[in-house]
Amino acid sequence: MNAAPVSRRARPAKAPLSREVVIETGLRILDADGSAALTMRRVAQELDTGAASLYVYVAHRDDLMTGMLDLVLSTVTTPTGGDWRQRLTALVENAIEALGRHEGLALHAFGRIPATEHALGLIEQLLALVREGGLDPATATWAVDLIHRHITAVAAEQAACTAPGYLTEITRRFAELPAERYPTIVALRAQMPAGGGEVRARWALRALLNGIIATPVDAR
Amino acid sequence: MNAAPVSRRARPAKAPLSREVVIETGLRILDADGSAALTMRRVAQELDTGAASLYVYVAHRDDLMTGMLDLVLSTVTTPTGGDWRQRLTALVENAIEALGRHEGLALHAFGRIPATEHALGLIEQLLALVREGGLDPATATWAVDLIHRHITAVAAEQAACTAPGYLTEITRRFAELPAERYPTIVALRAQMPAGGGEVRARWALRALLNGIIATPVDAR
Repeated sequence: MNAAPVSRRARPAKAPLSREVVIETGLRILDADGSAALTMRRVAQELDTGAASLYVYVAHRDDLMTGMLDLVLSTVTTPTGGDWRQRLTALVENAIEALGRHEGLALHAFGRIPATEHALGLIEQLLALVREGGLDPATATWAVDLIHRHITAVAAEQAACTAPGYLTEITRRFAELPAERYPTIVALRAQMPAGGGEVRARWALRALLNGIIATPVDAR
Repeated sequence: MNAAPVSRRARPAKAPLSREVVIETGLRILDADGSAALTMRRVAQELDTGAASLYVYVAHRDDLMTGMLDLVLSTVTTPTGGDWRQRLTALVENAIEALGRHEGLALHAFGRIPATEHALGLIEQLLALVREGGLDPATATWAVDLIHRHITAVAAEQAACTAPGYLTEITRRFAELPAERYPTIVALRAQMPAGGGEVRARWALRALLNGIIATPVDAR
């Protein structure tokens, strides 16, 4: 039995373009093929349109990345149980986990002040939590700077794309380091791989919060 | 008076290629024209050679960036005066200053374990200083992780290239934020621009060190 001929007109209509659709498509390309594959031309191809139509919705690749970052931050859930410190810790870990899943996305946040809806939403939550924890206004704003940088940096590390065999190569290099040139590294190198990234990141956040509490800005 | 004709043979000979020359050229291109201009093809053009000759000295752009990072770290001076904490603070500030001068270079360090000569030299110095400060071996290695991430992240912020008018645009956005959605930001926004980047970075490092000292790993 032959399939009945299908008129071109019966094909599903193209989904209408919108800033949201363009940003979702960008994120899909990033996750499938990595940061280098994410070009405006590629997004246009995926959406079966021309680059000129895209620019109606996003100004340039940078603007696209800002939109993608905001979309990912919109998925970060707000913790409810526990005291301010437990909720802050969970919020920071949720944000790192969300950002750390997308190659190169956290890097985009460096040097940019959070100014989109959900980036500001994260800052608002962090600020409210440290204020609840008793930090004075000046220390609270500097502390949130530091915590936000921590989120961005740890996520950037987790999402970094390294070549296959990278860890084997690094382990070999460390095993061969000359003790005359690097005495402390050689003495401590057995310690160095101890603790997975997550355990270390949790310790780092604990140290960060202890330090923030112990270092009020106005007492400088 | 006409200039005497110059034989092609009388032109100065091309400088011999080496890994060092390729890396220095890469850094010069980055500083002159920014990260996007730094391609292997451009480096080859500057050196008046073909891409194939370059690959003898650097494996790919990533390898070039690793070499450039190591070259910049080789210029970081080792502080001599003061106690361990003063020397550590000065060393961290020197490293941030050196890395923060080159767009995108610090970003390259994320997710990569320092393994080149001068990257390892910096880790060696940091480790020796925190050991001198009395940190146990486990806390010392995790602390250096955290301090190294701080250096990379602050330098990445300083070296980020933002569009002209960026700060004006951000200030306008913050001034217009709705208090119902962002109550804590709106309450504290007058505080937010207080303190230049350097003053904040110094406070952040102080908080970091206070926190590290207060958070031994083995006591977890």
